[in-house]
Amino acid sequence: MMKRYLLLAALFLSATASQAQDSVIIRKFYDEALVNGQAYDNLRYLCKNIGQRLSGSVGAEKAVTWSKKLMDSYGFDKVYLQEVMVPHWVRGAKEQGYIIDGNKKIAVPIVALGSSIATPAKGVTANIVEVRSLKELDALGESVIKGKIVFFNGAFDQRFIETGAGYGAAGIQRFAGPSAAAKYGAVGAIVRSITPALDDYPHTGGTVYVDGVKKIPAAAISTLAANKLSNMLRLRKLPLIKFYFKQSCQTLPDVKSYNVIGEIKGSQNPNKFITIGGHLDSWDLAEGAHDDGTGVVQSVEVLRILKATGYKPKNSIRAVFFMNEENGHKGGIKYAQQAAAD
Amino acid sequence: MMKRYLLLAALFLSATASQAQDSVIIRKFYDEALVNGQAYDNLRYLCKNIGQRLSGSVGAEKAVTWSKKLMDSYGFDKVYLQEVMVPHWVRGAKEQGYIIDGNKKIAVPIVALGSSIATPAKGVTANIVEVRSLKELDALGESVIKGKIVFFNGAFDQRFIETGAGYGAAGIQRFAGPSAAAKYGAVGAIVRSITPALDDYPHTGGTVYVDGVKKIPAAAISTLAANKLSNMLRLRKLPLIKFYFKQSCQTLPDVKSYNVIGEIKGSQNPNKFITIGGHLDSWDLAEGAHDDGTGVVQSVEVLRILKATGYKPKNSIRAVFFMNEENGHKGGIKYAQQAAAD
Repeated sequence: MMKRYLLLAALFLSATASQAQDSVIIRKFYDEALVNGQAYDNLRYLCKNIGQRLSGSVGAEKAVTWSKKLMDSYGFDKVYLQEVMVPHWVRGAKEQGYIIDGNKKIAVPIVALGSSIATPAKGVTANIVEVRSLKELDALGESVIKGKIVFFNGAFDQRFIETGAGYGAAGIQRFAGPSAAAKYGAVGAIVRSITPALDDYPHTGGTVYVDGVKKIPAAAISTLAANKLSNMLRLRKLPLIKFYFKQSCQTLPDVKSYNVIGEIKGSQNPNKFITIGGHLDSWDLAEGAHDDGTGVVQSVEVLRILKATGYKPKNSIRAVFFMNEENGHKGGIKYAQQAAAD
Repeated sequence: MMKRYLLLAALFLSATASQAQDSVIIRKFYDEALVNGQAYDNLRYLCKNIGQRLSGSVGAEKAVTWSKKLMDSYGFDKVYLQEVMVPHWVRGAKEQGYIIDGNKKIAVPIVALGSSIATPAKGVTANIVEVRSLKELDALGESVIKGKIVFFNGAFDQRFIETGAGYGAAGIQRFAGPSAAAKYGAVGAIVRSITPALDDYPHTGGTVYVDGVKKIPAAAISTLAANKLSNMLRLRKLPLIKFYFKQSCQTLPDVKSYNVIGEIKGSQNPNKFITIGGHLDSWDLAEGAHDDGTGVVQSVEVLRILKATGYKPKNSIRAVFFMNEENGHKGGIKYAQQAAAD
């Protein structure tokens, strides 16, 4: 019996000692992050010196080269590129959008949605049907929609404590709206920008064409312009108000790109991996600071801190900068397939 | 026995019901904050339209008027001003600082510390003694310090997870340094700005003159200039490097000002108060967004939300905008004295 107590005591002491050691190591991680943190500097470089980096663009290529060089400079045990073919969508000339009110043309800020097709060279002009949800669209059906431009004007619901959830809820109109409208014979789709801010900056983002449904051109409209258009539709007789837009975006053949991967080898299980990461690509109209610059700079910072403090993990740890989250997820899919095969 | 179970069950059900009701009410608070939140707009107005609001200044007066009007517009049960006499320190003409290196004069950015006296009209010129803590100062003593300008160059320690604690630790040099140096016969004090950022913006902040110790002029120097001065002292023979500074700040007679107070009356205990608040004044060189604009706009937002959602508290709730936290705490002291007397 005494032996058992001694054993328990020994176990307890060793647990306490190891806990104390853990807290010392964690404190080291904090100190390294607070005193020598590189994340903000890296984020600034990625956003300001590289800037936009949509899959297939020169910016994306630069971002890959910079990321690899950055990981090399941190002296990780292994740094490499994982090849992946990615979509190559380009925006083309600046988009034009007008509300046509009888003889008046009111310019409004629009941007093509990612993956959208172009309008015909002379643009699309049509009457407008405003809806605030996919449900409203379905309720109207083909007899109302056919030949029209559908204006998806569902507002961003601010009542989400996690704002990302609010973004997702509003996003459905953008992802699924254009194809849903096309099923009823719409000739174009204009989608309210997904943001609670009232401003004149239209936000792009991807749309998804459903297989077998005719592709129609789709654009985002700024929230202020969406409000103006909605007010005009409410106050005037519908047939007087039309919408015109023109965009020349196109999808070119897929191009070769890369996930960028850095590793610290595990001391006990080198072939077991803890993976952290973010996506390296951004939309073409933005620096992608929070989507997802912060994600990549933080994930590489984790490995840098482990390395800088001399920590030796039991399992291997990988930071992965995924390519092509914005319009295709090809990098993530490739990484998952390769991981399953390994 | 059965009765007891029934009683327990009833208690449990009532607790659950009240919990469910609580969560509905809390959800209402969130929704009001997220959908109709005024805090950012109020903060913008306070910082951009009113701006600096050091006790005794026109800005402080404007801030009091605006705050009272804002609380009135929210329809609280009681809104009033609590009179308080506050210090009236003014900076005067733009400060001048130079490192004098033989025949060369190198201009460096300095700002007088709050409550500091002026230099003589022709400024102060003297040799410099650099210290990195009050302990170092004490170790040098009068034989080294007398007749010199003491340069407090202790750097901001970034290893605090709560950055406010780092600020406090570095702040000791600023609060207590000038008087401590004066005890050893220093003729002036230059204090490294309390920030981890390396830049050319000197940060003001208050210093405290100890009773019975000769007051000497004290200024903050930008972190980049502090590094430059420190390097020059390290590389050159000490007597070649002098420092010159000139400032014309002064303390005028106390002036009348106010704490601004808003109340929602308690339904059960109207004379018991839950007090929340922030301080309305800011330094004269800043808009005071985080020190303490956020504090005041959030505290009034709490009352606004309670009112807007129709919540009736059992105890009275007060939002207090305190005057004169930066250089005197007279508003806080007045409020505490009045509360103790009531």
